[in-house]
Amino acid sequence: MSYSIITISREYGSGGREIGMKLADALGYDFYDNELVKKISIESGFTESFIREHGEYAGYTNSLLFNLSVSAMNDGTGLSMLDKLYIFQQNLISDLAEKGNCVIVGRCADFILRERDDCLNVFIHADNSFRTNRITSVYGDTSGNSEKKLIEKDKKRATYYKYYTDRQWGYSRNYHLCLDSGKLGIDNCVEIITEIVTEKT
Amino acid sequence: MSYSIITISREYGSGGREIGMKLADALGYDFYDNELVKKISIESGFTESFIREHGEYAGYTNSLLFNLSVSAMNDGTGLSMLDKLYIFQQNLISDLAEKGNCVIVGRCADFILRERDDCLNVFIHADNSFRTNRITSVYGDTSGNSEKKLIEKDKKRATYYKYYTDRQWGYSRNYHLCLDSGKLGIDNCVEIITEIVTEKT
Repeated sequence: MSYSIITISREYGSGGREIGMKLADALGYDFYDNELVKKISIESGFTESFIREHGEYAGYTNSLLFNLSVSAMNDGTGLSMLDKLYIFQQNLISDLAEKGNCVIVGRCADFILRERDDCLNVFIHADNSFRTNRITSVYGDTSGNSEKKLIEKDKKRATYYKYYTDRQWGYSRNYHLCLDSGKLGIDNCVEIITEIVTEKT
Repeated sequence: MSYSIITISREYGSGGREIGMKLADALGYDFYDNELVKKISIESGFTESFIREHGEYAGYTNSLLFNLSVSAMNDGTGLSMLDKLYIFQQNLISDLAEKGNCVIVGRCADFILRERDDCLNVFIHADNSFRTNRITSVYGDTSGNSEKKLIEKDKKRATYYKYYTDRQWGYSRNYHLCLDSGKLGIDNCVEIITEIVTEKT
């Protein structure tokens, strides 16, 4: 089995984005993260900051409140702004997948592409200690609230994922491969995925 | 990082036991599954069939009923029969881990050995179609109830795991590596784990 699309879902601060970027480099695949935001912005008319804020994070961590906040933004078309953004993302991700040979980070891509056999869905996680250290050293977060921040970010991602997919974020059955980047190491995760994709293992 | 202990947790019919056995062969490690049942039987006095039935399966899938059934077996020592069995398993798994170089299947070994840095915790899962085909072809189950059976077995394992660890069975954060054996292939899973353990990746 060879894979022309790899989706990377990740806990905040786990290095999933870095893994995706290095993986794309190693495989010679296109890498879609910031690039995806730009493309969605051009096609949808939403600003990049709106897409970053609402493209994979629920506004509230409680799903009922999230639902209500979505409804409140309804503009009379029967679709909320967030639903419209989701549909833009969904269509663009499906189009990019058609082109193949790409790594896509976040945005429910694993769910959107669930019918494709050539898609490998990966989830990256790590313990809080590894992640707080990493967001301090890599992202330069010196607020002292790193742990609180990552818990909030994860909750918002989980709520968004649940809302649009009706699945549990981070539950192993939703992915083909889940890796603990704190235990295994970021570069090792890249190598493990590369070996799988290139069928060396 | 090298790993002298590998724990394999697995959905019913996913091939986790076969992966564990092949992995132990490949690494030259001891393999504990039936062997573990025999050792627990000798040390605890419980029969092998009692251990097989109650050593990693809840009697009921509803945790309250499971709890009540455990209490009902209480013999006045403050510990139920199932609690005693769990403690025997826990102590034996800890002792085996001290000896090192082993693969242990099931029985909450990932949780029991959670403080050990030399332990790699793996979860194996696959979709229902792959598993029903496998339990028909490998286990020779021709009852026609394969899917119902695997759902029940998984629920009982999940309930047992939740009861003794307070964790969600199959949730990626509880393991260092989760693999979809249906998608990746059983022999490929063996190779992926072998590469990680022998630090080839």
